[in-house]
Amino acid sequence: MKALYYNGEKLSYVEDYSKPTRKENESLIKIELAGICNTDKEIMKGYRPDFKGILGHEFVGVVEDSKDKSLIGKRVVADINRGCGNCIYCTSNREKHCLTREVIGIDNHDGVFAEYLTWDTRLLHRIPDNLASEKALFTEPLAAAIEILDQVHIKPSTKVAVIGDGRLSFMISQVVALTGADLTIIGKHSDKLENFKAFAKTTTSTDDSYEIVIEATGSPSGFDTAKKITRKQGVIVVKSTYANNINIDLSYFVVNEITIKGSRCGPFKPALSLLEKGYVNFPNIKFFKLEEFEEAFKSKEFKIGFRIK
Amino acid sequence: MKALYYNGEKLSYVEDYSKPTRKENESLIKIELAGICNTDKEIMKGYRPDFKGILGHEFVGVVEDSKDKSLIGKRVVADINRGCGNCIYCTSNREKHCLTREVIGIDNHDGVFAEYLTWDTRLLHRIPDNLASEKALFTEPLAAAIEILDQVHIKPSTKVAVIGDGRLSFMISQVVALTGADLTIIGKHSDKLENFKAFAKTTTSTDDSYEIVIEATGSPSGFDTAKKITRKQGVIVVKSTYANNINIDLSYFVVNEITIKGSRCGPFKPALSLLEKGYVNFPNIKFFKLEEFEEAFKSKEFKIGFRIK
Ligand SMILES: [Zn+2]
Ligand SMILES: [Zn+2]
Ligand SMILES: [Zn+2]
Ligand SMILES: [Zn+2]
Repeated sequence: MKALYYNGEKLSYVEDYSKPTRKENESLIKIELAGICNTDKEIMKGYRPDFKGILGHEFVGVVEDSKDKSLIGKRVVADINRGCGNCIYCTSNREKHCLTREVIGIDNHDGVFAEYLTWDTRLLHRIPDNLASEKALFTEPLAAAIEILDQVHIKPSTKVAVIGDGRLSFMISQVVALTGADLTIIGKHSDKLENFKAFAKTTTSTDDSYEIVIEATGSPSGFDTAKKITRKQGVIVVKSTYANNINIDLSYFVVNEITIKGSRCGPFKPALSLLEKGYVNFPNIKFFKLEEFEEAFKSKEFKIGFRIK
Repeated sequence: MKALYYNGEKLSYVEDYSKPTRKENESLIKIELAGICNTDKEIMKGYRPDFKGILGHEFVGVVEDSKDKSLIGKRVVADINRGCGNCIYCTSNREKHCLTREVIGIDNHDGVFAEYLTWDTRLLHRIPDNLASEKALFTEPLAAAIEILDQVHIKPSTKVAVIGDGRLSFMISQVVALTGADLTIIGKHSDKLENFKAFAKTTTSTDDSYEIVIEATGSPSGFDTAKKITRKQGVIVVKSTYANNINIDLSYFVVNEITIKGSRCGPFKPALSLLEKGYVNFPNIKFFKLEEFEEAFKSKEFKIGFRIK
């Protein structure tokens, strides 16, 4: 089958990758659409030195074969973490943190920049009939944004800031806006901030203070800004990872009783629900063919994907 | 009056310090007992470069004069932070975080290593009649330990570790033990750990993992240990301050969704209640006279105080 294969050094387009065969508990899924995520780019820069295989973890596919016959022909998305089933994380509702987990296109399992994927049937989520595949492709990154609401109670009366004016911030901000919170987006680019004005206040200033601050820039200076603008007894949600260690005055956070909260993948069901109901809206994805992957990875559009035939 | 005065460089015993006069909303308190806290030692090492005045913030006193006549002759302890009353912190139940606060013996207000203190009547708490002053002197540090329970929900089924085998850890551990949680104290000294065995498991090993980890060593290596033993999606409560910045791999906390929570002063009412009911018990305090302060500050006893006549 066609696939984008990462050999540990670079990504290549191949046409003769062997089609996976499903195990008893798995379904065979024909990939329809796949999305490029920042993590894919990081892997290509060496973020996951042990990973070799097909890249990609955001997808919409159609079940071609499964023990669950009701799924055949149906469109699905899927949780990307598969745990061992036995460890303290798997047995306490934290499968995504399993120490020996497989992650589609990231850890020990081929990804979705390909024609087919096999994956546990129990990890699949049916896409509602009235939700277009092009929108459902946002499910995985949207779930990661929704994770924040599972971790922190953002009340309608809470004063919240999101730092960053890029794609990650855009998705998070739309989710936070739904809480009714007093939401401000802090960015560096007035033109990008324009896109947020439909659902939030925007500013380039870091002079005000907030109860909950979500760091979504991916740069250490974003964390410095978060420290500056978070109120005492407030919460900093760190949603982006940094390439290097950060030098922190931890005593500042102790004395001011500030909470720092790491946040990663999230729940798929509410993501599908918000997309179906139209509560969140994102720009159209720009699609390429797999063989156009070099052009795709260079594109500066809001969101890039592959349409796989 | 007699007092221990810190001039910004060193502490001296003086006998001719002028007795404070109370304002309308304040009470005049005769100090009976005062406790030495680690913060006092840190101030003497330069932790609060702007502070000059009488040191000390842990005390038990008797109200000598007050607009509230029912208090006169009664023993009291007091919240040590006094806010402006108008800022976002004072108007949102976070007076201790007021940006322009006064703190007894720490910020802009004379402390309790002296014969008298004046302080807002509303910040005083009466000591129950059946609670000895020598025990009530633990109220302030115990309140700081209780603060953890106000910040984090420690359930009876939660696996918790406290790192450290010193006084701070001892107070925190007794409070956490009351939750019924599965509690382990991780220390370096087998002899000190003996004292914890009445209410917790103890170990010198850092091989197990825990949902909630409380760092109470005051050394950066304690934070490294906390990082190592905290489960994914777990919480690290940082209860001690560090002299220097710490180099942190923040991405580790993001990917593993770990929460870092700073914790400081706490509520006095439950501290008095736990002491009164005998739910927590600490070794006897060793008392000195004010003029013996040099010897007192050198003592290695569990807790040192001044008995002021
Ligand atoms: Zn991703
Ligand atoms: Zn597992
Ligand atoms: Zn203290
Ligand atoms: Zn204030």
